[in-house]
Amino acid sequence: MDAAAILKSHGQATENYLRQILARYASAPKRLIEAVEYSLMAGGKRLRPALVLECARAAGDGKSIPAAALAGAGAMELIHTFSLVHDDLPAMDNDDLRRGRPTNHKVFGDAMAILAGDAMVTMAFEALAVDGGQQAGRMVRELAAASGPEGMIGGQVLDMEGENKGLSLEELQQVHRLKTGALLRCSCRLGAVAVGASESSLAAISDYGRHIGLAFQIVDDLLDVTSTPERMGKATGKDQKKGKNTYPALLGLEGSREQAQQQLSAAVQALTSLGPAAEGLRILAEFVVHRAF
Amino acid sequence: MDAAAILKSHGQATENYLRQILARYASAPKRLIEAVEYSLMAGGKRLRPALVLECARAAGDGKSIPAAALAGAGAMELIHTFSLVHDDLPAMDNDDLRRGRPTNHKVFGDAMAILAGDAMVTMAFEALAVDGGQQAGRMVRELAAASGPEGMIGGQVLDMEGENKGLSLEELQQVHRLKTGALLRCSCRLGAVAVGASESSLAAISDYGRHIGLAFQIVDDLLDVTSTPERMGKATGKDQKKGKNTYPALLGLEGSREQAQQQLSAAVQALTSLGPAAEGLRILAEFVVHRAF
Repeated sequence: MDAAAILKSHGQATENYLRQILARYASAPKRLIEAVEYSLMAGGKRLRPALVLECARAAGDGKSIPAAALAGAGAMELIHTFSLVHDDLPAMDNDDLRRGRPTNHKVFGDAMAILAGDAMVTMAFEALAVDGGQQAGRMVRELAAASGPEGMIGGQVLDMEGENKGLSLEELQQVHRLKTGALLRCSCRLGAVAVGASESSLAAISDYGRHIGLAFQIVDDLLDVTSTPERMGKATGKDQKKGKNTYPALLGLEGSREQAQQQLSAAVQALTSLGPAAEGLRILAEFVVHRAF
Repeated sequence: MDAAAILKSHGQATENYLRQILARYASAPKRLIEAVEYSLMAGGKRLRPALVLECARAAGDGKSIPAAALAGAGAMELIHTFSLVHDDLPAMDNDDLRRGRPTNHKVFGDAMAILAGDAMVTMAFEALAVDGGQQAGRMVRELAAASGPEGMIGGQVLDMEGENKGLSLEELQQVHRLKTGALLRCSCRLGAVAVGASESSLAAISDYGRHIGLAFQIVDDLLDVTSTPERMGKATGKDQKKGKNTYPALLGLEGSREQAQQQLSAAVQALTSLGPAAEGLRILAEFVVHRAF
């Protein structure tokens, strides 16, 4: 079992489910669903849904993955994609390239991109409510909290307010804990909640998710410096241009890599109590960190 | 009992609840919550929450209103306000005035207005999940469906696509059924669902909501022609400027008033089986229609 195989398998399951969801909106305006589909089915690593599904496996029976977890995976990808579509808007980051293709508003216009993003949020919560089974209410609560003012959207605001303003390492960590960390941690929790995990398993999974979230952001910052638009499918070097606060700017490349490695160790450590069922999560953690090395 | 008293009482209950919700986000970025609060607490008729609460009363024991209904009322107002904030954006309707004050993006900037709108959606679903009690899952499902691609957001798209393009009366009705009708009908259904209404009560309430939705839009179109910005707290006469399809344009003022009156009669007719408990709903229906006369 390697990371590529895990991501491929969970990615395919998630995409099949997302196609089912899209098909449910048969009487919606065609152009709106096209705009949603354009960004939602544009590929990407599908890391968040893979975390949902792999955490469901690790906190469940170690083998099967229930339908409620798939709802969590789909909802998470919808929320993540919504955040990218709105983040790319001219009024926000004004990006032209995403996942190797023109951004949503470049193809569909600003108004449709706003509405397509809005639609993805409602679709995410509808997916949980319809397919989340007994855990639906709890999953809605987790996802809403992780996406909202004290989660991802709050992080976007802090990030925006921090531009061209020197942040301390602590402040930077707070931005990331919310902006990307909250949804990554929530991905892990949704998987565990979907299988009705015990409180101790949920705590372990949560801890893992928190460290993965921090590692992910450090690596993302590193890649913005060291990678190319061709490899990344989006603009690089833009953090510096915008005066954004990054780990490499604060800690240097080597210091940032060390930090990422420390978060990786802590993430793996958190999984101890889950035993061999968590093997896939260890592999995913290494993937998250080592793509930057 | 008159409409003003009903709206005032339900409006106050809703505003108290919304203040409670805002207070829950104490660790969110301050400016974000200010932006949310600016639009959410700007007054307005609070018609949708009043419909939620009055339908809960009518479909329940005719007296008390449970906490789950209040969650529905708050969630509905959050979704409604989100839709106004995004609709007012320069990329959308580009409006400067709303509820008698500068629009959200005029005060907080486009980026913050987008994020504040996004935040209100997650807050709405979180309110339902946290305070919706046993009916939370069902309420999330109803609200998501009414807001999404086959509801309000779908209606925004149809409305946008219909600008400067002649629509038939049937097409116009479809735009409104989605754009404003879906949320008004959902307001009514949320109230009934919150009290665990029987299928027959829910059907009656639903029917009422559908007719109220159509009546509301006809009246809104009429007021855009016959009222003033001072009375309305927002720009008027803008439908014609934008080549928007309206009832007065298709049916004339008199024909539109007749249509509104017909919808009012149908709404009241739908309430028959609910008996005296629905008196408040009859009064609200008349209020919706007669403010245009």
